[in-house]
Amino acid sequence: MQVVGILGGMGPAAGADFVRLFVQSCIERMQVLGLAVSDQHFPEHWLAQVPVPDRTRALEADAAWAQQPLEPMLQALGRLAALGARCVAMPCNTAHAWHSRLQDRFPQLDVLHIAEEMALNLAAHGVPAAALMATDGTYRSGVYEQALARAGVQCHLPTPAERARIMQGIYDGVKAGNMPLAQRCFGEVAQALAQRHGGAPLILGCTEIPLALDGAPQTAGLRLFNPAQVLAQALAQRAYAA
Amino acid sequence: MQVVGILGGMGPAAGADFVRLFVQSCIERMQVLGLAVSDQHFPEHWLAQVPVPDRTRALEADAAWAQQPLEPMLQALGRLAALGARCVAMPCNTAHAWHSRLQDRFPQLDVLHIAEEMALNLAAHGVPAAALMATDGTYRSGVYEQALARAGVQCHLPTPAERARIMQGIYDGVKAGNMPLAQRCFGEVAQALAQRHGGAPLILGCTEIPLALDGAPQTAGLRLFNPAQVLAQALAQRAYAA
Repeated sequence: MQVVGILGGMGPAAGADFVRLFVQSCIERMQVLGLAVSDQHFPEHWLAQVPVPDRTRALEADAAWAQQPLEPMLQALGRLAALGARCVAMPCNTAHAWHSRLQDRFPQLDVLHIAEEMALNLAAHGVPAAALMATDGTYRSGVYEQALARAGVQCHLPTPAERARIMQGIYDGVKAGNMPLAQRCFGEVAQALAQRHGGAPLILGCTEIPLALDGAPQTAGLRLFNPAQVLAQALAQRAYAA
Repeated sequence: MQVVGILGGMGPAAGADFVRLFVQSCIERMQVLGLAVSDQHFPEHWLAQVPVPDRTRALEADAAWAQQPLEPMLQALGRLAALGARCVAMPCNTAHAWHSRLQDRFPQLDVLHIAEEMALNLAAHGVPAAALMATDGTYRSGVYEQALARAGVQCHLPTPAERARIMQGIYDGVKAGNMPLAQRCFGEVAQALAQRHGGAPLILGCTEIPLALDGAPQTAGLRLFNPAQVLAQALAQRAYAA
């Protein structure tokens, strides 16, 4: 087993939930590998939850602003490397706009890419097209559109009004601790996207979205894909592969 | 705000859940302090989930065995200190048998004590007596009995058969990924203890117990206290106090 790291804090509730998903994925790995499930059969893992300036705001501003989230991410990544981590996951979709700069700075680390992992997973499920719910920053960076295109999966995008409603659910909802508001915002957009695209699966491409939407009545009958879950499975696979 | 650490891995699911409780407690602190709730207003926090030999088994064996969990805990604590943590919480009740040795080795850290925090909380709620559900190791170490006695709270203990049933729920249930079994084991003992002690509150004194028991139908009408939640609140208070 190898030591793995989680670069969180973006937001902290999503980071906490990602550890839960990772622990669950480790249990699944143990079962696949025929290991007894016990505390001692988990790989060593470290979660860094550090304050990082807002990612979407940085992507919408000028180049100087766009550096701001990078510095604390690089610092935390360096400390995860010093702790012995060989592979790191970031439970924040928007942060992947800086993925290549993080990976370039730490070539000794395997920095997983949430959109690449999600795209491979959709292609493996034979999904021809999916609709993306994400932050304005993630749409602007194009990380999902590029990853899905490489995997041969078509990407449907919400209207500007729907994007605004998603942002409201993320910032005034989950990040501000108001879950009922978040559930209403996300539920509305999810229903509209599914209707418009013939029941296409939805990518919950911001780690805050599943925190409010999981198990919500508005999602009955929808096909939801949670990239954080796919990323947690990928991290567990790397941890047990060594 | 000061940097805080979480020494987890005992078990990993409880460590993940503790981060969730800590994040929730931070949101409550922000609201009390009149701070806007946002990613950037959380204190930096690090979670170490390291493999630690079984705590109860060590406490039941001879002195040489009893050293085994201490070494990885000291290592992880030293690394949390190196990351800048000033205050550390351990989401494992049984591990508190080693609390004084951990605190003595790192006098620069404030190592919170889960049973002391729980005892103060019960006393503040005016609770005269409570029944303790815990591991055999925790009963053997006496950490709760001592902390509750100092706070003037009487401590009721389960019968040997009930203790065995709790251990089954922890080890064959939660730690092995079998939640329905855990829920049955814990639910039975919780009901029996509450009946025998006139509806006295129950201390869920092993971090695995609330993972299976929270929201379970068997707990209807019972008064449950979760020391992990009280510990998370204490850690958040320390993080914002500086």
